[in-house]
Amino acid sequence: MAKTAGIVLIGNEILSGKISDANAAYLCRELRALGVEVRKISVIPDEVEAIAREVARFVAGYDYVFTSGGVGPTHDDVTIDGVSRALGVAVARHPRLVALLESFYKGKLNAARLKMAEVPEGSELLAADSLIFPVIVIGNVYILPGVPEIFRQKFEAIKERFREQPFFLRSVFVRIGEGTLADFLNDLLKAYPLLMLGSYPEFSHPDYKVKVTLESKDREYLDHALAEFVDRLPQDAVVRVE
Amino acid sequence: MAKTAGIVLIGNEILSGKISDANAAYLCRELRALGVEVRKISVIPDEVEAIAREVARFVAGYDYVFTSGGVGPTHDDVTIDGVSRALGVAVARHPRLVALLESFYKGKLNAARLKMAEVPEGSELLAADSLIFPVIVIGNVYILPGVPEIFRQKFEAIKERFREQPFFLRSVFVRIGEGTLADFLNDLLKAYPLLMLGSYPEFSHPDYKVKVTLESKDREYLDHALAEFVDRLPQDAVVRVE
Repeated sequence: MAKTAGIVLIGNEILSGKISDANAAYLCRELRALGVEVRKISVIPDEVEAIAREVARFVAGYDYVFTSGGVGPTHDDVTIDGVSRALGVAVARHPRLVALLESFYKGKLNAARLKMAEVPEGSELLAADSLIFPVIVIGNVYILPGVPEIFRQKFEAIKERFREQPFFLRSVFVRIGEGTLADFLNDLLKAYPLLMLGSYPEFSHPDYKVKVTLESKDREYLDHALAEFVDRLPQDAVVRVE
Repeated sequence: MAKTAGIVLIGNEILSGKISDANAAYLCRELRALGVEVRKISVIPDEVEAIAREVARFVAGYDYVFTSGGVGPTHDDVTIDGVSRALGVAVARHPRLVALLESFYKGKLNAARLKMAEVPEGSELLAADSLIFPVIVIGNVYILPGVPEIFRQKFEAIKERFREQPFFLRSVFVRIGEGTLADFLNDLLKAYPLLMLGSYPEFSHPDYKVKVTLESKDREYLDHALAEFVDRLPQDAVVRVE
């Protein structure tokens, strides 16, 4: 079984349509490439209670939980409060983060900026040597910022800890539609019940009608399933296999 | 109070990073413009139980629920099953959809294609005159397809039913950072607790450091808040107001 992950995006600006999130799509691609299965993404408002409820569910449900957003110095940055409440711990100032902020802001470290030294009590700091500002983790919850450039920098710095057996993926492009294809897919799943099988129609592509994806962590299982699938399809149905 | 909405995206292809969803961002923008407040987005796999659980929660929590994806003829199209289970109703073939499919596929209407005539029992069809294939709604759940072009066509055809009092939005671009700005925002919220106030730092813009958004359904309340905010800010802090 693959390790599982859940992603919680925190931000009224996404829900109100002011910005399009880019972090979830990036993280889904990265985690998939690392062999981790993302099971759920939630987008919720900047509200302590909503964050606490969602993070608590995710902590219980998935091996890894990633939050994005809500970690700055202003009134709408309440992710640390929400995660702390989810885990039943206090909010505490981390001495190492206080020291970092002091050296960064020199004499100008006010109360608002000090908020960025707050963590759920018991948090660890990751990649403290390679990043200007380290990643905060508590239990299985990785707290990341919403700004896409910094989100990526931080994930890049810690990603190797999540690597495991990869998913193997093959794609079959066919010129028959889903209505004809459906029975072949069902038959394939009967023979290979553990196969991850996707069917994606393309309505405007000149060459093919459906892209079929076959995936497994077991390369041999995948190869057998692919061979059998292509073999069973009507002659001329396959445009190409990738 | 604004009407609320929740969006459930159904699709392994999003979670596994194969595609980036465009429907949620579109729908958030559209609903906001109509005066509706989106409270949550979930992305979940093509699994009946996961869909049933999520849709049941959303039905209880929000005025409107929109699903995207999982409505084709293949094995991984299980949204109708999931929504039916969420609402405790059977899956039924809708006679009008059967007739539509018959006229479309002529003699080639097989079992897989007939799956597209299935609805949660008791569903209504919307925009049946203007769309080739109408929108399926049951209770407060609107079932939309994942293909972005068709998703938009369908929402366009029904959107006026959601229109209400709009949100009014003003944006203030400032050249001071969030660490300095935070106290001004907190003071503003003390004076205008009902204001929706957002603070969005921009790290690479030459002209301003933070975009502050002020929103309300009460235009007068918003105008007063804006005037007071701009008045309280340090001289020269404001780059522009939109």
